[in-house]
Amino acid sequence: MTVLKRPVIVVNFKTYIEASGPKAIALAKTCESVAGDTGVPIAVAPPMADLASVAQAVKIPVLSQHMDDVKPGSTTGHIPLESVVGCGAVGTLLNHSERRMRIADIGSLVGRCKESGLSTIICTNDIGVTRACASLEPDFVAIEPPELIGGDVSVTTANPAIVKDSVDVARKVCPNVGVLCGAGVKNGVDVAKAAELGTDGVLLASGVAKASDQRKVLLDLASGLGK
Amino acid sequence: MTVLKRPVIVVNFKTYIEASGPKAIALAKTCESVAGDTGVPIAVAPPMADLASVAQAVKIPVLSQHMDDVKPGSTTGHIPLESVVGCGAVGTLLNHSERRMRIADIGSLVGRCKESGLSTIICTNDIGVTRACASLEPDFVAIEPPELIGGDVSVTTANPAIVKDSVDVARKVCPNVGVLCGAGVKNGVDVAKAAELGTDGVLLASGVAKASDQRKVLLDLASGLGK
Amino acid sequence: MTVLKRPVIVVNFKTYIEASGPKAIALAKTCESVAGDTGVPIAVAPPMADLASVAQAVKIPVLSQHMDDVKPGSTTGHIPLESVVGCGAVGTLLNHSERRMRIADIGSLVGRCKESGLSTIICTNDIGVTRACASLEPDFVAIEPPELIGGDVSVTTANPAIVKDSVDVARKVCPNVGVLCGAGVKNGVDVAKAAELGTDGVLLASGVAKASDQRKVLLDLASGLGK
Amino acid sequence: MTVLKRPVIVVNFKTYIEASGPKAIALAKTCESVAGDTGVPIAVAPPMADLASVAQAVKIPVLSQHMDDVKPGSTTGHIPLESVVGCGAVGTLLNHSERRMRIADIGSLVGRCKESGLSTIICTNDIGVTRACASLEPDFVAIEPPELIGGDVSVTTANPAIVKDSVDVARKVCPNVGVLCGAGVKNGVDVAKAAELGTDGVLLASGVAKASDQRKVLLDLASGLGK
Repeated sequence: MTVLKRPVIVVNFKTYIEASGPKAIALAKTCESVAGDTGVPIAVAPPMADLASVAQAVKIPVLSQHMDDVKPGSTTGHIPLESVVGCGAVGTLLNHSERRMRIADIGSLVGRCKESGLSTIICTNDIGVTRACASLEPDFVAIEPPELIGGDVSVTTANPAIVKDSVDVARKVCPNVGVLCGAGVKNGVDVAKAAELGTDGVLLASGVAKASDQRKVLLDLASGLGK
Repeated sequence: MTVLKRPVIVVNFKTYIEASGPKAIALAKTCESVAGDTGVPIAVAPPMADLASVAQAVKIPVLSQHMDDVKPGSTTGHIPLESVVGCGAVGTLLNHSERRMRIADIGSLVGRCKESGLSTIICTNDIGVTRACASLEPDFVAIEPPELIGGDVSVTTANPAIVKDSVDVARKVCPNVGVLCGAGVKNGVDVAKAAELGTDGVLLASGVAKASDQRKVLLDLASGLGK
Repeated sequence: MTVLKRPVIVVNFKTYIEASGPKAIALAKTCESVAGDTGVPIAVAPPMADLASVAQAVKIPVLSQHMDDVKPGSTTGHIPLESVVGCGAVGTLLNHSERRMRIADIGSLVGRCKESGLSTIICTNDIGVTRACASLEPDFVAIEPPELIGGDVSVTTANPAIVKDSVDVARKVCPNVGVLCGAGVKNGVDVAKAAELGTDGVLLASGVAKASDQRKVLLDLASGLGK
Repeated sequence: MTVLKRPVIVVNFKTYIEASGPKAIALAKTCESVAGDTGVPIAVAPPMADLASVAQAVKIPVLSQHMDDVKPGSTTGHIPLESVVGCGAVGTLLNHSERRMRIADIGSLVGRCKESGLSTIICTNDIGVTRACASLEPDFVAIEPPELIGGDVSVTTANPAIVKDSVDVARKVCPNVGVLCGAGVKNGVDVAKAAELGTDGVLLASGVAKASDQRKVLLDLASGLGK
């Protein structure tokens, strides 16, 4: 059973300087504050080096950005599951577009995370890979339809089928899988639209991390899931 | 100018469970205490996820176990230099035997670390690679002669030439490079012997991290460099 | 439409010296001869460096052992799809246990191979990964149940459910997918048993490549699929 | 002792479609013909899949574009040294900018190639890496000064120090190492200039592979080294 509620807003800090070191803790606290004020669940994925310090600083769910399918011990410079657990994180992103993973490792880690009670969010890039990853039965897949990446097209303005088809494909092979919209989300209207199309929330990064007023952006995003 | 003094004892926590999460902070504090009590410089390299929390917890030098040659920002799940700096670490291991690196990345990172005032320790596995890595002019190379890895042979009992030749090779291409003995060191006698053979200290891991009495082992090791 | 018939025996030459260079061509010709004599389809996957020369030497299907998801041109040292096509091969193994691949690359390559008329065989290691890979709709999955790898247990002596469950899982998400038994097959009896359990043939390596009498082993294997 | 004469023109076919499959053999034969007509040594590095077929087709030196530091046998999809030897190639490029390698693997392979009588050409990208790689004592380093890559600047028009400094650095740590100019060479004048600056020849790719008249370009290049 995943510790991540649905719907949820997952904020990936990537390795932005604006979200690293002391600023990682500050942003995590802002997320925690907005989650508390709005009642909308927010989870954070800080830079790898800040994982333990952020996990100690806040009570909202903290996720690793990556995990290596290795054992603890003689694996210098890697991120084993035990390291993620040991520092107080409750789950992990897997296969982010900036850190693609081998299918054998993803499959192994989803199984190991389940046994350890860690939540898994597998990032996917097209319908076929979404279907394949959902069939591994993670807690979530975070879909990033190519049509929505990096441009001005948002989930609100795009053809609704782009998101809806991914949701359908994922749920068909794994009825209980959560689906996050991982691209094309910039504001509360987009978040609401993503939810309307059947997703369980959003995964976003620069929109929050690089905002001049991070709190304001988070409040707007949360309004899209507000009751 | 490196912030690491010479000689120095560098403790690599690897990803041992006994040196992860709260236990990473505990071990780092033990190292700090022994360094304070004995006057022998000790630096620590905790698991990646614990880097910031350990760097906040102690005043002795904290090193990253690895660094990726990437820019900060859109590099989810990686360890850019800026992330290491941002969380308060002062240097990094590079090319550890459990995390071998591409020569182009090592070369680039040594240069970038110099500009940022971070110390670099490149791990090497034989005479040729030691020579190559020393020629990149890092602060330290940590030599791991194959003859000394994983067996009962220690630097004290082995043919002295095994260590001495590596030191000579490294210093010939880079007169100022520090040389750490990265294998065959288990106690204070070995540390003293390593120093006698011309090294500037030692890099070790399980001998400390997995010890039933970590403090006792550290005190013994420090005695090998004691005045 | 795949050019590989069903059932089929796929012989992976790996990089065995006994199946490299001129010996790769010799073994491919033996496979061709046995296929001709018995009427049982046999395909071969020679070492990467021998791909073109083997493809020129025989008329049976020749497969690449691997493919990189890169474009032709500035990809020195890689194996783009165009290189495989250009030298006359008709398909490729993907995700072999000795060359695991990222899910995004496998997904992309299955699609590109379909467009180019190349057959794809994705190797898988457990039920979950088999399901995930079959959902990408390759021509074949080659299942390697961990219980059957590297020991004395063959598909004939093992619990039949080990193979049958994989076949069922694969066919459920992709009804037309071919399924090869990739482990636990040493002789014609095993091949017949694998077919009886619902597979479309076998993928094997050392049993043929390292045999003192390669032709004799091939004839025995083929007898398992003989009419 | 390397089988590559000095000076030499090394043509990297990369994975250009214009130099793959039957066209790889055709281009290799053109290189062989020009080498014969002009007396200027030319070596070729065809796409991996074409290595054996090209090595069989011509008598000039054929090089692998890459080599993996693995053993022959259970290394499906890799390029072990034995595979390169087995198909008749006489050497290899290592660490090409499109296929960067780990220093430990380069070091190991240079040693193994020496034992097997294979020539090694390590590609390098800056002064530091050139120095490091030359210290491994390969047969050649192929320097690619960043200033000369991908633009209109050629070795003839650039500041002579850019090439000369690399040559000096390499020769200082390894007096007998051959040095190839790996960037900024487009015609015979550039080849002559590169030789004048102390190199032992050139490594080039698209200028030949993508030329509308490959023979004409090769003749022009060879004229730069002609007697």
